[in-house]
Amino acid sequence: MVQYPSKLARQTRSGLPRSQKKRTNFANRGMSFENMLNETNSYYLTKGLAVIHKKPTPVQIVRVDYPQRSRAKIVEAYFRQASTTDYSGVYRGYYLDFEAKETRQKTGMPLKNFHAHQIEHMGQVLEQEGICFALLHFSTLQETYLLPAEALIRSFQDNWKSLPIEFIREHGYSISLGAFPSVPYLEIIEEHLIGGKSK
Amino acid sequence: MVQYPSKLARQTRSGLPRSQKKRTNFANRGMSFENMLNETNSYYLTKGLAVIHKKPTPVQIVRVDYPQRSRAKIVEAYFRQASTTDYSGVYRGYYLDFEAKETRQKTGMPLKNFHAHQIEHMGQVLEQEGICFALLHFSTLQETYLLPAEALIRSFQDNWKSLPIEFIREHGYSISLGAFPSVPYLEIIEEHLIGGKSK
Repeated sequence: MVQYPSKLARQTRSGLPRSQKKRTNFANRGMSFENMLNETNSYYLTKGLAVIHKKPTPVQIVRVDYPQRSRAKIVEAYFRQASTTDYSGVYRGYYLDFEAKETRQKTGMPLKNFHAHQIEHMGQVLEQEGICFALLHFSTLQETYLLPAEALIRSFQDNWKSLPIEFIREHGYSISLGAFPSVPYLEIIEEHLIGGKSK
Repeated sequence: MVQYPSKLARQTRSGLPRSQKKRTNFANRGMSFENMLNETNSYYLTKGLAVIHKKPTPVQIVRVDYPQRSRAKIVEAYFRQASTTDYSGVYRGYYLDFEAKETRQKTGMPLKNFHAHQIEHMGQVLEQEGICFALLHFSTLQETYLLPAEALIRSFQDNWKSLPIEFIREHGYSISLGAFPSVPYLEIIEEHLIGGKSK
């Protein structure tokens, strides 16, 4: 029997038996978690529910050619490390800021997926009263969680190598993947993170 | 005599005579407005006053080489048009979102500097109760304004080709450039934009 992290998580899974759930779980479509999130954010934007965008990949541009007058071509550039999280935006006046990670592992989320700069940024956001968290997707387990930044920062500072799945189940909130939207994380924010409440 | 947009703007210019002000005006250092803003945001971040970042330039990456094992080299990429504004972040729980533009013109700010997508994004942010505006810097006039997004959106929708300087003085708030920080826009937000007040 899978341990759900809270009574609420069970409720939002709408009481369907596990076997039936699996057939309708959209994580089965083979779509990456990032794509599911992009879909979700498009859905929220179209419905006027929230304005959340993924930041562009930071690139250090070194050389640009102009082979045609109409379009510049970048011919030398390098990836830079992100100094913030990947996603941010606004929901009913609240500032949201989060990072999303996916793993095939079953026992935990490796912390090497997060950079020190991102963790530092999360701490800064919390100090400014922003709503900050990580969305963690376990593709093999087919489980997805919203983990508040406080728990992530603590484990990073304690030099953990990985966030154990039991820790995430205990300190995070389970998200049931769906169709519209794919990753309904706003419900969790509305119910648990707004108004300074936390687990 | 320069027309200041409001009583407050005069006060924050600390009553110095114009000639004396010019000598200490940091716009004279030849720094671009973008660099002044980056400095300002670094200052706010370091002092724990706000977390505002400029988004990376959006780039469509087509081909990546691996000349050394350690570092990927992007050898073909193109600039994409931004779908949002350049700056966003959080200040005391408030979501801030803005675009910054600089011109040498003395009579107005050309609206071709803004894209339809950015204006649409600004409207979406306002609907989510975010604080949204443009920072407009006139390098020849040595005047800088915070213009609330509502006025910008309206003029864009009315197909204006340019925002006349008189319009900006009337609907915007003057910012006196300084040293620490270079572009103290948070003061304007605190005094005029928080709590739903607008001009």
